[in-house]
Amino acid sequence: MIASAQQRIDDLLAQMTLDEKLAQLTSCWMYELMSGDHLDMVKVSRRLQHGIGQITRPGGASTLSPREIAQAINRLQRFLVEQTRLGIPAIMHEETCCGAMVYGGTMFPQSIGLASTFQPSLVEEMARVIRHQLLAIGARQGLAPMLDLARDPRWGRVEETFGEDPTLVAHFGVAYIRGLQGESPREGVLATGKHFIGHSMSQGGLNCAPVHMGWYELHDSFLIPFQAAIEEAQLGSIMNAYPELDGEVIATSRRLLTDLLRKELGFKGLVVSDYEAIQMIHTYHKAASDLRRAAVLAIKAGIDVELPTTVCYGDPLRTALELGEIDQETIDQAVRRHLQAKFDLGLFDNPYVDEDKAEEVFLNPENQNLARRLARSSLVLLKNDGLLPLNRSLHTLAVIGPNAHSGRNLLGDYSYRAQRELIEARQGTLEATDEIGHPKIHTILEGLQSLVSPDTRIIYAQGCDNLSRDTSGFEEAICAARQADAVVLVLGDRSGFLPNCTTGETRDNAWLSLPGVQNELARAILDTGKPVVVVLVTGRPYVISELAERANAILQAWLPGEEGGMAIAEALLGDYNPGGKLPITFPRSAGQIPLFYNRKPSALTSHWHTDYVDETVKPLFPFGHGLSYTTFTYENLNIQPTQVLPNQVVEISLDVINRGSKPGDEVVQLYIRDEYASLPRPIKELKGYARINLEAGERKHVIFHLPVNQLAFYNSDLCLVLEPGRIEVMVGSSSEDIRLRGEFEIIGNEAWKIERREYFCPVEVK
Amino acid sequence: MIASAQQRIDDLLAQMTLDEKLAQLTSCWMYELMSGDHLDMVKVSRRLQHGIGQITRPGGASTLSPREIAQAINRLQRFLVEQTRLGIPAIMHEETCCGAMVYGGTMFPQSIGLASTFQPSLVEEMARVIRHQLLAIGARQGLAPMLDLARDPRWGRVEETFGEDPTLVAHFGVAYIRGLQGESPREGVLATGKHFIGHSMSQGGLNCAPVHMGWYELHDSFLIPFQAAIEEAQLGSIMNAYPELDGEVIATSRRLLTDLLRKELGFKGLVVSDYEAIQMIHTYHKAASDLRRAAVLAIKAGIDVELPTTVCYGDPLRTALELGEIDQETIDQAVRRHLQAKFDLGLFDNPYVDEDKAEEVFLNPENQNLARRLARSSLVLLKNDGLLPLNRSLHTLAVIGPNAHSGRNLLGDYSYRAQRELIEARQGTLEATDEIGHPKIHTILEGLQSLVSPDTRIIYAQGCDNLSRDTSGFEEAICAARQADAVVLVLGDRSGFLPNCTTGETRDNAWLSLPGVQNELARAILDTGKPVVVVLVTGRPYVISELAERANAILQAWLPGEEGGMAIAEALLGDYNPGGKLPITFPRSAGQIPLFYNRKPSALTSHWHTDYVDETVKPLFPFGHGLSYTTFTYENLNIQPTQVLPNQVVEISLDVINRGSKPGDEVVQLYIRDEYASLPRPIKELKGYARINLEAGERKHVIFHLPVNQLAFYNSDLCLVLEPGRIEVMVGSSSEDIRLRGEFEIIGNEAWKIERREYFCPVEVK
Repeated sequence: MIASAQQRIDDLLAQMTLDEKLAQLTSCWMYELMSGDHLDMVKVSRRLQHGIGQITRPGGASTLSPREIAQAINRLQRFLVEQTRLGIPAIMHEETCCGAMVYGGTMFPQSIGLASTFQPSLVEEMARVIRHQLLAIGARQGLAPMLDLARDPRWGRVEETFGEDPTLVAHFGVAYIRGLQGESPREGVLATGKHFIGHSMSQGGLNCAPVHMGWYELHDSFLIPFQAAIEEAQLGSIMNAYPELDGEVIATSRRLLTDLLRKELGFKGLVVSDYEAIQMIHTYHKAASDLRRAAVLAIKAGIDVELPTTVCYGDPLRTALELGEIDQETIDQAVRRHLQAKFDLGLFDNPYVDEDKAEEVFLNPENQNLARRLARSSLVLLKNDGLLPLNRSLHTLAVIGPNAHSGRNLLGDYSYRAQRELIEARQGTLEATDEIGHPKIHTILEGLQSLVSPDTRIIYAQGCDNLSRDTSGFEEAICAARQADAVVLVLGDRSGFLPNCTTGETRDNAWLSLPGVQNELARAILDTGKPVVVVLVTGRPYVISELAERANAILQAWLPGEEGGMAIAEALLGDYNPGGKLPITFPRSAGQIPLFYNRKPSALTSHWHTDYVDETVKPLFPFGHGLSYTTFTYENLNIQPTQVLPNQVVEISLDVINRGSKPGDEVVQLYIRDEYASLPRPIKELKGYARINLEAGERKHVIFHLPVNQLAFYNSDLCLVLEPGRIEVMVGSSSEDIRLRGEFEIIGNEAWKIERREYFCPVEVK
Repeated sequence: MIASAQQRIDDLLAQMTLDEKLAQLTSCWMYELMSGDHLDMVKVSRRLQHGIGQITRPGGASTLSPREIAQAINRLQRFLVEQTRLGIPAIMHEETCCGAMVYGGTMFPQSIGLASTFQPSLVEEMARVIRHQLLAIGARQGLAPMLDLARDPRWGRVEETFGEDPTLVAHFGVAYIRGLQGESPREGVLATGKHFIGHSMSQGGLNCAPVHMGWYELHDSFLIPFQAAIEEAQLGSIMNAYPELDGEVIATSRRLLTDLLRKELGFKGLVVSDYEAIQMIHTYHKAASDLRRAAVLAIKAGIDVELPTTVCYGDPLRTALELGEIDQETIDQAVRRHLQAKFDLGLFDNPYVDEDKAEEVFLNPENQNLARRLARSSLVLLKNDGLLPLNRSLHTLAVIGPNAHSGRNLLGDYSYRAQRELIEARQGTLEATDEIGHPKIHTILEGLQSLVSPDTRIIYAQGCDNLSRDTSGFEEAICAARQADAVVLVLGDRSGFLPNCTTGETRDNAWLSLPGVQNELARAILDTGKPVVVVLVTGRPYVISELAERANAILQAWLPGEEGGMAIAEALLGDYNPGGKLPITFPRSAGQIPLFYNRKPSALTSHWHTDYVDETVKPLFPFGHGLSYTTFTYENLNIQPTQVLPNQVVEISLDVINRGSKPGDEVVQLYIRDEYASLPRPIKELKGYARINLEAGERKHVIFHLPVNQLAFYNSDLCLVLEPGRIEVMVGSSSEDIRLRGEFEIIGNEAWKIERREYFCPVEVK
């Protein structure tokens, strides 16, 4: 079949005019093809006369229902197949970060919350739902997962990441890709790993600013999730990162997008541009004096497809070819890759979907159930002095804060709602109400109202909004707190793209204080002396030292999605015992950035005074931190064998016991340290973990099967090696709460070269 | 002579035992050779029996007077020459950052203040004084200049830098080296460029933490001052940087210390280790499992001499040689380089000094005069609503603040006093008083007292100290302010090494707020409603947004040295009109870091929202900013030719007119922008500047002779090139206060390869 596809692609290429080829290299916004709410076949036949590579967001950039999207996609594919000369169908792509970004798509927790579950299998389930929803409407590429490492919480897109740890991000990335791509491309949705490479470490946390990173750090940390995605999950597509990396605009970098990605990492799929990234070579980075040169640089670097619409890969690229600035073969190769993807997806055989069935997978209550399970699992209990779970016999409960009664604010930036706001704002049609653009979402207030005892009275006051300096609601909020036996104070972000949003793409933050007057509100409420639980509905870690000191309990809920309101209410009232862990470090000050747990020995101290003049070097809450309503103890560490060679597996076993009176989840975390190495290794590296559920008093036996090759690292010649020496083994409840320590030794006289690194440490729980 | 030196070195090497060779590779603390205040010849004959490469800080690590140092050095050299088998003299080295760090050495302003003068010629004069003082005592190597670029104000050593700009740092570095090294090595002091390379960009601003930097950024920015120092000033010695750079510990990096430094940059001199940097490979970085391996890595990398004393290059290196881990030739090469340096310095001919004349150059009033001129020139007037200069007819002046009446706090971290504190603290002999370890320094209070009109009453109150949380002095300070017609509020740092210091080596800062309760003091004083001028005696830019808004005037005085108190008083009272400019950007928040003026086009904006959610992306005070008591206008920009080729010179001329009624200095600044390039170029680059003095109403004609080759940059293949295209020319009073704009064009069809970059833009003033 591959040979025959190859033949068909060659045949097609041989027949294609330059117009037809260029059309395959670009995409077209859905709204370019519509008039009002309907496909406009006049526009279609004009815009798509030579075919088209992709259609951008048929659902995400329209107000169509799933059924209507399916109908529209069928009509578009039918036009392409039947009305264009070569009959080449398009790939319809959608955003899929934490849900199909179309009206009615299930809204799961934002990625940073997904990572807090420490349960990649749930994310594979989630991506399977996304796949079914995309397949149902006929969309075959999803612009996710994000594989960036979040080491700078100032960056607005931290919420879209799976956190700071290369292994954790790799695991969630692989799970996501497996779920989205499915068993076979013909029944799958093409996943798009992004952003290749380094986007998350932009200067000052500013989106698209230069990345200051060397070639070694790239290999040592930032490539890992991409390597795992390529090697373990056959990632189908890659999107370039916007910034310049070490001086070179990534979209122009053949070294990165071809030499590194294809030759070194062995990537075989399709490289798509981030939206407008090619024109930005000229307009934003000034690395090309016009769009034509930008087009030439990008296609030579290895970007096959321009998204979201035709700007550089149309006329500018045509002119470049005419001027001899690129050759035909460079264009053909990109076209070939795109056609290959379409063949792989089976689009040439059948690009159509059953319109009548499109709604089914959207209305499936299982999806909602999964969204609830993910939201629950994502909750991280940062602090609890015993106030949580709330006493069911509370007489009066005050529920206060800008995110207490907002369904909208439970969603991430790549939710349909948030994207819709952006489009509507640009069109001038944005409505003031939050409760449009998605089905009804239960707020935290509503969740609490539905779950508290009938004897509990709930008083709600918003207090303030997310970002403005308006304190006019403080008095009502303080009054509510004074009347109550306890306060649930729900603070945090509004994620999205507009100026009133506080996190999300290009909503970067310098001070890392809770936005607007929320700290002032919190202080006023805490000053009432009432017991206060703070719920943080945020997309990033904020500097919350004062809250951490004064509040009785803090629940980090991230952006928990459509079921977040209910899940949080369950957790507050003890119907669910939170067990998530932080996938990212909480700093005490923006001035500590970058602060991540897997630091080098020389990091995180100022040589000889250790601390800053004015602050400790320690985080407020470390990576892996998260409490429970019960407590766990760790016992009986056993490591076998204690002297190992490459390709062996070390069995690291221990017992975990629930010592409390409630059932609960614990994420058992395995860290290692390679104590001396030719290049300094991190003081801790997460290699395995297991989220386990234990009944009160229950004991479980956990066995990590650690492949020694999982410890391979690049030496200064960029060879993957294992070096002989002592490996410290640390098992604990967070990166700083290590409960058991042991060691093993890699034996040998000199470094071992390792052909293939392992990314996974299988775990057995008995 | 070179041939003969070569021969003598070869002869010596042929005779040397391994003990004698190893001795040449290390140094010895002065205090290892002393008992109490005197050289102990028993210790000397034991410790130096095989000779020694260097002696560490004969003056800086003792309490000897210049005459006593000279005597001690003569005795040491005499022992080495006469009592050791081969009679090889030692190089005595001292710290010389902004003055000879010995008792009685002239204490010039700290480097960041020197750079604020924008007058490298003054620094050349300063280094000449340092040379004469070192020569007088017999010390022949100075561990300066620092050539690091300061792009992270959290780092405690920012004060030791010449700021953030590669060209400015290069100019000051070259001037310093020329002054210190003199016309010929035989009459010069070996300068030590440090820290090679990247020290200033450590993670989180933490001293010695990993540097996240790629090979291109290194070349594009951080190497420039070193290249200029090597090419333009024949820099004699280089010191490695402590951190790891892109994963590799610099002290172990042959790629950096040999391939880059010697082969690529053409450095021919001596590489010395930063203090303890070799043992830190093992103890701190964990890149070697013991000291022996650390020694092997360091000497193979290219570190010739271990400082400050023998730890790794003694027995550990001997064992390594015996085990075959290094070869004899590697050791010989390092010995050869050290002997070469000693020959070059003329030490083999005469290592002795005239003890009787040693004091002369220390007591020379010209030195004090130069210190005063430098202190004056270093003052930067950040804000002035007209309060400054202070009215001479003031009835009562309050002088308040922790740095108002401290001589000690006018000094930088590498002052003899600050270093002495460290040694005494370690010995447990530290005395509480600030006024020891240096001759009497006039404080700002004393300066004002000596200069105000007899009718002006001065009330002084300390208010608080630099770092503690003690507010008990506030009441007195507020009371003083209330009685006064105006307030001089002197805030800032105590620079040094002890826990009560707030800037200096390993005194890094996370929040960048003024330390201790100084902001609270300032608020209390400002709340009195009295006119307030704030004088900042600091080693770094602090976040002072509130002061910038509320104070009537702000004078940034840095750490101005022994004449700072008088110079500041002169400026406050109008006897001197300040004209310094900022060599480093003042951020508005630690969360904006790194913030520097010569950013890439994509930096300093969050793509499409531009600003942070909670802060502008703009600095509080930009690079190059500095006001005057008069005002200047710029006119008549002329650029010739407007189309140029490589190797040509562009003449950029303009007029500057003093429009005010007072004479004053203006630093005319020439920036260029290479608008489109294959790799994005900074939006502004300083290429030339001239500090000119104009009488009231005077006009001067300034002509920049800009060599086009000064615009050469590395392309992605690391070739120095000039690319055809438009060059924008901007002339102004700061990097953001551009007064005149023009352009010229580099012509051609493709990139020009440039053999030799220029670093200097000559300026004529008529």
